[in-house]
Amino acid sequence: MTALQPSIIVHGGAGPIKDDSLPARLAGCQAAMLAGWRILQRAGSALDAVEAAVVVLEDNPLFNAGTGSTLNSLGEVEMDAAIMDGDGLRAGAVAAVTGIKNPIGLARRVLEDGRHVLIAGDGAVLFARAIGFPQCAPASLIVASEKQRWDSKHGTVGCVAFDQNGKLAAATSTGGVFNKLPGRVGDSPLIGCGTYANKVGAVSCTGYGEAIIRVTMAREAVQLLQNGSEPSEASGLALANLAELTGSSAGLILIDSHGRVGYARNTTHMPVCYVTLGSDPKTAV
Amino acid sequence: MTALQPSIIVHGGAGPIKDDSLPARLAGCQAAMLAGWRILQRAGSALDAVEAAVVVLEDNPLFNAGTGSTLNSLGEVEMDAAIMDGDGLRAGAVAAVTGIKNPIGLARRVLEDGRHVLIAGDGAVLFARAIGFPQCAPASLIVASEKQRWDSKHGTVGCVAFDQNGKLAAATSTGGVFNKLPGRVGDSPLIGCGTYANKVGAVSCTGYGEAIIRVTMAREAVQLLQNGSEPSEASGLALANLAELTGSSAGLILIDSHGRVGYARNTTHMPVCYVTLGSDPKTAV
Repeated sequence: MTALQPSIIVHGGAGPIKDDSLPARLAGCQAAMLAGWRILQRAGSALDAVEAAVVVLEDNPLFNAGTGSTLNSLGEVEMDAAIMDGDGLRAGAVAAVTGIKNPIGLARRVLEDGRHVLIAGDGAVLFARAIGFPQCAPASLIVASEKQRWDSKHGTVGCVAFDQNGKLAAATSTGGVFNKLPGRVGDSPLIGCGTYANKVGAVSCTGYGEAIIRVTMAREAVQLLQNGSEPSEASGLALANLAELTGSSAGLILIDSHGRVGYARNTTHMPVCYVTLGSDPKTAV
Repeated sequence: MTALQPSIIVHGGAGPIKDDSLPARLAGCQAAMLAGWRILQRAGSALDAVEAAVVVLEDNPLFNAGTGSTLNSLGEVEMDAAIMDGDGLRAGAVAAVTGIKNPIGLARRVLEDGRHVLIAGDGAVLFARAIGFPQCAPASLIVASEKQRWDSKHGTVGCVAFDQNGKLAAATSTGGVFNKLPGRVGDSPLIGCGTYANKVGAVSCTGYGEAIIRVTMAREAVQLLQNGSEPSEASGLALANLAELTGSSAGLILIDSHGRVGYARNTTHMPVCYVTLGSDPKTAV
């Protein structure tokens, strides 16, 4: 089989962002995209690429995922993450997990383990311990200043990729919504809501999670691809559907089975960085 | 607006059932269906009807939900439940919750609270405590004999209903899969996977949860209704899609926007009980 031209797109969350943090957020998205892109260029898998990109974003305290996650109503960091392999519909996710520096890596281990798709709360920590996945002090993920906490409120991160074998994958990671109740699970770790991948398309969403869940936005976007929409049209239509049914705002990124990239937002900002069909890296907000 | 003819269908889980327990399971489904039906006949809402029906099944130790739930790998009961109102896309769910006699009632309170859709683990218990929802001793939900534990492995329960105002609702409750890892979340509490309702249809699924999640079976079934399938066709096609993509077995019940009932299974048994379009109550396995 001839090697196909890979593609990848990363987002750094939809929502209001202060203008002075935009360049740093775009640079963060670009660094993450390049981490995934290097894997794709070396004939690596879409699944490895999306995980690598999201790890870079989780480690960047500007974003609301991993280090720098927002705080729940108890002042604690509880994180959600999911990863899905479009080829075999394999998926792994963790929800409301504490003391894990890279939740997307733990989600990947849930996928590889294969017994379950989603493990939540203390159970996810037990799973990490059982498989020897690194834990960290929960407080080490909290970025110090109150200002930064509020800034990071809208920085869910995600990546979708298409590899040279034509396989698609999606990954999403988040600290959730500021002041959320303990144990609240948003759209990001829910297959079909914030994250989805099959042979038709791969999607990562960001925005008001409860609304994204109600319309299963990621699954809806893939359905639109399946019905014949092009990626940019599908992302726009999925967003219009969300807005019409819930009045909410969000953003999403996607890639179809030809490796074509699409994205849309109805928020003021959503930093993205992508490479598609042999293009140079592109960024947008 | 003229009052429409309501309809309702209840399932008691898909999977192998010993023949000698079938009559009791059908009777349990019938009692639950009648609890919901009485509400619909008094002009009550589909949302109230599905909650009432599922409470009856949770309280019946024959089924794997509420009292009589199966045990996880630590020998503990952890339960999942979701409820969704198709009219406003309102939804509430709890996952991996302990010490709650009626998880579907707690899910309903998450729906009414409105801040979040899904609350997992200890956070769900904290939520219950905060709103004064009754808690129970976790061990009180364990049915004594090992035999019953294994028998109840396949008894996820669910109900969908259509009320005289033409509104749809769905509810699902389960103890999950025997010997699951602590914190494992199955399809039942996940919107679009085990449970979904909108203006087009309402669905409750049962079966191998991880596979149902990967194909977002409830959302798929509603999509098929939206594309013009009749309820029995839509349920059969959703199941065929699951089998083709994952090789797994399951069952589902659904009602469309005309109040027409459909159900399908590719397991040996799935007790159901329903009333549709003015019929007398019907049962099937």
